[in-house]
Amino acid sequence: MTQADIGLIGLAVMGQNLVLNMNDHGYTVAVFNRTASKVDDFLAGPAKGTKVIGAHTLNEFVSKLKTPRRVMLMVKAGDPVDQFIEMLVPLLDRGDIIIDGGNSHYPDTTRRCQTLKSKGIYFIGTGISGGEEGARHGPSIMPGGHPEAWPHIKKIFQDIAAKVETGEPCCDWVGDEGAGHYVKMIHNGIEYGDIQLICEAYQLMKDVLGMTSDEIADTFGSWNTKELDSYLIEITADVFRKQDVDGTLLLDQILDVAGQKGTGKWTGISALDRGVPVTLIGEAVFARCLSAMKDERVQASKKLKGPSPHFKGDRQSFLKNIFQALYASKIISYAQGYMLMREAAKDYHWKLNYGGIALMWRGGCIIRSVFLSKIKQAFDKNPNLYNLLLDDFFNGEVNQCQTGWRETVAAATMQGIPVPCFATALSFYDGYRCARLPANLLQALRDYFGAHTYERVDKPRGEFFHTNWTGTGGKVSASSYSV
Amino acid sequence: MTQADIGLIGLAVMGQNLVLNMNDHGYTVAVFNRTASKVDDFLAGPAKGTKVIGAHTLNEFVSKLKTPRRVMLMVKAGDPVDQFIEMLVPLLDRGDIIIDGGNSHYPDTTRRCQTLKSKGIYFIGTGISGGEEGARHGPSIMPGGHPEAWPHIKKIFQDIAAKVETGEPCCDWVGDEGAGHYVKMIHNGIEYGDIQLICEAYQLMKDVLGMTSDEIADTFGSWNTKELDSYLIEITADVFRKQDVDGTLLLDQILDVAGQKGTGKWTGISALDRGVPVTLIGEAVFARCLSAMKDERVQASKKLKGPSPHFKGDRQSFLKNIFQALYASKIISYAQGYMLMREAAKDYHWKLNYGGIALMWRGGCIIRSVFLSKIKQAFDKNPNLYNLLLDDFFNGEVNQCQTGWRETVAAATMQGIPVPCFATALSFYDGYRCARLPANLLQALRDYFGAHTYERVDKPRGEFFHTNWTGTGGKVSASSYSV
Repeated sequence: MTQADIGLIGLAVMGQNLVLNMNDHGYTVAVFNRTASKVDDFLAGPAKGTKVIGAHTLNEFVSKLKTPRRVMLMVKAGDPVDQFIEMLVPLLDRGDIIIDGGNSHYPDTTRRCQTLKSKGIYFIGTGISGGEEGARHGPSIMPGGHPEAWPHIKKIFQDIAAKVETGEPCCDWVGDEGAGHYVKMIHNGIEYGDIQLICEAYQLMKDVLGMTSDEIADTFGSWNTKELDSYLIEITADVFRKQDVDGTLLLDQILDVAGQKGTGKWTGISALDRGVPVTLIGEAVFARCLSAMKDERVQASKKLKGPSPHFKGDRQSFLKNIFQALYASKIISYAQGYMLMREAAKDYHWKLNYGGIALMWRGGCIIRSVFLSKIKQAFDKNPNLYNLLLDDFFNGEVNQCQTGWRETVAAATMQGIPVPCFATALSFYDGYRCARLPANLLQALRDYFGAHTYERVDKPRGEFFHTNWTGTGGKVSASSYSV
Repeated sequence: MTQADIGLIGLAVMGQNLVLNMNDHGYTVAVFNRTASKVDDFLAGPAKGTKVIGAHTLNEFVSKLKTPRRVMLMVKAGDPVDQFIEMLVPLLDRGDIIIDGGNSHYPDTTRRCQTLKSKGIYFIGTGISGGEEGARHGPSIMPGGHPEAWPHIKKIFQDIAAKVETGEPCCDWVGDEGAGHYVKMIHNGIEYGDIQLICEAYQLMKDVLGMTSDEIADTFGSWNTKELDSYLIEITADVFRKQDVDGTLLLDQILDVAGQKGTGKWTGISALDRGVPVTLIGEAVFARCLSAMKDERVQASKKLKGPSPHFKGDRQSFLKNIFQALYASKIISYAQGYMLMREAAKDYHWKLNYGGIALMWRGGCIIRSVFLSKIKQAFDKNPNLYNLLLDDFFNGEVNQCQTGWRETVAAATMQGIPVPCFATALSFYDGYRCARLPANLLQALRDYFGAHTYERVDKPRGEFFHTNWTGTGGKVSASSYSV
């Protein structure tokens, strides 16, 4: 009986394409799907002529795998992953490996690592990005979990992963427990931000400059050769040229209601939980929420007033401003994402390789871009770089963009165009470079009404003071409710 | 032995003041504290000459209570609440009532309701706002939990609560399970937003207009007689007049590092979880996070460049713009908070009385203001009002403010002053009144790279389409990973 190098469960688009990708690289893959007909359809269809082996039962599937068995799950995140793990465990031996390649929430991955370790089974939770195309021809792969399992899957994963220009694979070990899925979550959050930034640029081009779709396509096409050279900018240009069956622009027929699968939301929640101001991703998630309130917006549009967008001035220079707003905001967003990874790594004692993460994202995935090489370079130059904005290159870029960025936000503000991410990025930048924020007033107020105490500029940190602001009231500080 | 009407555990500032408040209203209160000396200190100090009864053990404490026993916990949210509940349950009888008056997270309250119900003990989780002063002289009280317990505590609670001008108490039944703590959480989130808006106004006055603290005090003082008439504006004026021991402005000595106790964060997380764009509170929470990064900000301030604030123009009209920015942003924030309550009520099947909530917040609590009467009026006029912004009064107010609001955000943008909440409020307003957002592009991109499908403007909602954007690739949609 042919022995498969790896088995994959779950033949939706990502699963199918990963199997074909592995097959292309010489691996024999066994496949299983809960609806068995999907296995037959796959073998008779896309997998025709390959070495892929189908299985109609889980027993049959497991029996076809070389040891240590490598079983990859490409099923819906959540319960289905636990269900398959439960079904697989009795069929596996100690030292076998289960790999979850779905968009699992990182605490689930950490929990599964712990549960499976006690059973002698290794577990890998891996982020995979690149969509259909990436899965088929080279995704970005971000594996974490039990490091003991890494040597057994490293070659397969690095073979099927995307490669950067220098040939390095966009896949390397991320870290223990849920680290792989955490980094994938950040990737997705950043993807939310990148897309929202493009949407804000689009709305300004359309509603303020009144550009045609061809002009917009040309603009994004030209931007794709500069600092913003990236997959998302590239396909944005394509979208503005795609016709519907009747020859009109397909984009105009698409409903402006955005879906989300949860990873952006998880990034926002993780940021709030950890107290890291990842404002741009937060706004990008909320922008999707607002888009979903379509009926309410239509109703509100009839009632709430605003300026009528109009443009006077130099169109080319306004377009250049939008470019600068997009580029600077993107730098802020990545800086914030890296801030969040830094804090999570502290909390979980992960040793994250920040340059390596930029390299993993450099190719294959949705956010792949020339820009990520610059991040890699920044961390190569200074592995202890605390914040991307403190790197000379990025600091210089933001500085060069800032006039155009400010002009864009100010113009959008006056013209009534929502730019939540351009604006929050700028507020973050201006707040981050404030040695002194107005939070002294905030602390004074909290001490006034709630005796929450404050620190002083002329005393060491950690010493807390309470003032009796009104001259009346008690002397008991509310810094603790201890009883 | 004297029988106490109610017992209170936890003699930090809020607990002490609530006891004194109840005593003022003729109630006999038994008190207990884990550190027994605090009981003695309280009886010999603030409670001297009152009817307050001290207890040194929990047994003694419980023995002094009339039945059904009413035990109020004013202890730190989290484990201490569960610990006291566990210790109390064996000492209580069926039908007795435990009341948690701390800042508990609403899912904990819901869980405690369920656990205690099975033991025949009633549970109330109540939000209490008003800080030291409110607790002492009349707080806002937001009780939820087992409705069977409400008749037994209604009189005490409404007696000690703040009263609005018409004499109505700022306390009424909120709803089942964690509804009381949920509404308190929203209150706190809104408080985060209100305070941050004041801070942004302050930074503009100080850094752009170069106003002295007296001028700032006068300005807030004058605002306190207008649409912004509120406790927080009032005490802000006080803060700008409070001198340190050496006669200088105390505020200048306070460190610009803000603390948080979690309720703002919980509001942001609840908003993300439910998909409701509560952007202003989100930004306010993140602003506190950024304030906490003091050392990093000081370092960044030396490296990151920006414009030098300067002002040319009419100072009074700029101040009026700031007023309008603050007022309009405040309306947006409350509209967002109400949106979140609306969605939570749907999810949990709570019947919230939205006008009643505004009334509860009208007095006693930190966010008390004339403004809340307007919200009450809006819901009196239309109990089914879907969004505050659709109410004619608020719509008109925002419209009247919008020029000054836009000018303020644009000026701050150009001058390099961070205004995250003014700006996000405006982006929300402009997005909310967009019948068509650029989210069609977002959906196109997601379908392009991930086969996530989209809806069409010319087809019914719920019909999903996938386009093969590149002309290559598979036909399998990624709308589900089902296996």
